[in-house]
Amino acid sequence: MYTLINQVGNARRGEFETPHGTIQTPAFMNVATAGAIKGGVSAIDLKEIHCQVQLCNTYHLHIRPGDEVVRQMGGIRKFTAWDGPVLTDSGGFQVFSLAKLRNIKEEGVTFASHVDGRKIFMGPEESMRIQSNLGSTIAMAFDECVANPSEYRYVKESSDLTIRWLRRCNDEINRLNSLSDTINPKQMLFGINQGSTYADLRIENMKAIRELDLKGYAIGGLAVGEPAEVMYEIIEAVEPYMPKDRPRYLMGVGTPTNILEAVYRGVDLFDCVMPSRNARHGHLFTSEGIRNLHNAKYTLDDSPIDPQCDCPACKHFTRSYIHHLFKSGEMLAMRLSVLHNLHFYNTLMEKIRESLESGQFEQFYRQYKETLSLRI
Amino acid sequence: MYTLINQVGNARRGEFETPHGTIQTPAFMNVATAGAIKGGVSAIDLKEIHCQVQLCNTYHLHIRPGDEVVRQMGGIRKFTAWDGPVLTDSGGFQVFSLAKLRNIKEEGVTFASHVDGRKIFMGPEESMRIQSNLGSTIAMAFDECVANPSEYRYVKESSDLTIRWLRRCNDEINRLNSLSDTINPKQMLFGINQGSTYADLRIENMKAIRELDLKGYAIGGLAVGEPAEVMYEIIEAVEPYMPKDRPRYLMGVGTPTNILEAVYRGVDLFDCVMPSRNARHGHLFTSEGIRNLHNAKYTLDDSPIDPQCDCPACKHFTRSYIHHLFKSGEMLAMRLSVLHNLHFYNTLMEKIRESLESGQFEQFYRQYKETLSLRI
Repeated sequence: MYTLINQVGNARRGEFETPHGTIQTPAFMNVATAGAIKGGVSAIDLKEIHCQVQLCNTYHLHIRPGDEVVRQMGGIRKFTAWDGPVLTDSGGFQVFSLAKLRNIKEEGVTFASHVDGRKIFMGPEESMRIQSNLGSTIAMAFDECVANPSEYRYVKESSDLTIRWLRRCNDEINRLNSLSDTINPKQMLFGINQGSTYADLRIENMKAIRELDLKGYAIGGLAVGEPAEVMYEIIEAVEPYMPKDRPRYLMGVGTPTNILEAVYRGVDLFDCVMPSRNARHGHLFTSEGIRNLHNAKYTLDDSPIDPQCDCPACKHFTRSYIHHLFKSGEMLAMRLSVLHNLHFYNTLMEKIRESLESGQFEQFYRQYKETLSLRI
Repeated sequence: MYTLINQVGNARRGEFETPHGTIQTPAFMNVATAGAIKGGVSAIDLKEIHCQVQLCNTYHLHIRPGDEVVRQMGGIRKFTAWDGPVLTDSGGFQVFSLAKLRNIKEEGVTFASHVDGRKIFMGPEESMRIQSNLGSTIAMAFDECVANPSEYRYVKESSDLTIRWLRRCNDEINRLNSLSDTINPKQMLFGINQGSTYADLRIENMKAIRELDLKGYAIGGLAVGEPAEVMYEIIEAVEPYMPKDRPRYLMGVGTPTNILEAVYRGVDLFDCVMPSRNARHGHLFTSEGIRNLHNAKYTLDDSPIDPQCDCPACKHFTRSYIHHLFKSGEMLAMRLSVLHNLHFYNTLMEKIRESLESGQFEQFYRQYKETLSLRI
């Protein structure tokens, strides 16, 4: 259940109650693709960096170790030792971005696994069954994610197909939730709005999917090729048609600035691999902009990554040390950097929430944009 | 200062007081080669797995980031955020095992760096200066480490050279410790006994180096090619000539059984890359022997690595999960495994110390050998 605590313009400070804990929104979900954050970060570490929700990838876990394995191990939360909420994506995005030799039909998609080329079929029912086996808190609808830009006619057909798939997802999850041996009988389904960069298709799609009265709604198919300004315009176009009493999730977004702009436009939930991926390459988010720890100028710099940060990396270690670890190829370099970047994102969301609560959001928004937007 | 608390046969339970904390012996030193344990383990993690002493490699740190950098960053303890004792080796072993194109003279050794081929000269004075820059608690003497087996005549000459080098090390460290800007003015020097597998040369060497009345003595040049039985015989031969009131350190050893056998013969300190290296390959030390977590039989095994273990990996995660992490190439697999294996070694030493204190060591020794020695 979503409760709106305070609203500033379109920006919302809320609470989203789930069977596995309450999520304070706006929130950033930390991406543990195959059941672990890349860079050697465990679910236990996530507590220390203020993570509220872990996001795992259905496609990856279906291929390895297999969702039946995860089910037998008690579900993804028990498997990864994370006791908070977990959102699983539907596999749709990976089918369209990672897998090879796709063949899309009304029933679903046949594709070749990116690991071993094995042929796999996935449709709405399969995606729901996999996510039910994973036992996540929130399951995402199986959708077709089209690249931007795409032809209007193709997007319209695809978006209509996604609506038909969503109805099948909804029927299937209701059936699965009522089974006696299901891992999470209260698994929640989020619908996904599609329609590429066409505002009219987005709105038409949103009107249709809100009819299903789902537990939450996502905006998918953005940040896949279009300029950020177009993304913001689409959010602005579709937001008035999203239910006010449901959380809104902008999938796969983005930079700190992207997130702030989307919160400003009424979005509650986010996820992105950017903080962990950048960290592994030595690109650290700080209150002073991006810092590249590979840079030789950090050789003798005994400050923490960000003097204003109290993450486990900044609390104990210097730029000099982490620079040395990167140069020496020590895994600890990646681990400390990933912890820092995720903490940066989680803390950004905390600051956004605080400013929404205290009514200072507009001020925070303007100040942040002035000092940071050109850099990150 | 070394204080003997209890002795059972030759096995000693002691306390070794250092400027950076008291080490309960027998103890295993955890190897952080380039200033970080491989596998993404930080100095903060070391506290959690009961590590007492961190060992860092002079050769590696001299080459990268450079000992002058470490000095300017406040020394190796501040650099790595480890507030306990640190032992640095002398670089001798790496010069003889890693470096290329060695040229040994009375003054020292000229060699090519294994990283970039750069020509480097290292002699006793250079090794002491580097270790003084690192500011470790314990510095090791610069020695020549010969491979086993080696010719008697060569070993005799080498062992005599090592004695002359030791005198120069001692003079240099005394000079460095008295400088006003030294990082650790109480840096302790350990001498290293050499003599390969020749008991008479070992004894002759030991008699000579104990004259210098150093803070501790190591047995070097073992576990470099000879059978374990020969190693035990050499320890037995040289042990009676080692000072009773100084810690004894068996360098680079070994398996849990090796360590137990050496404690039995009067050794106090150990180090080895085996626990962390094996861990990174999925080979886990457990109370039931070695477990290879790559094995498919762990796919659906929801027990911890070792049901008798309370390390951070066993406390939260299952064999099934860590098996999956290895299969997926997730760094977290290595991290959890390294934490477990180092905890296993540190805990083994705790058990040895307890049995020595309670007078049950003989019993512990026999029981351990009966149940484990054939396996690890």
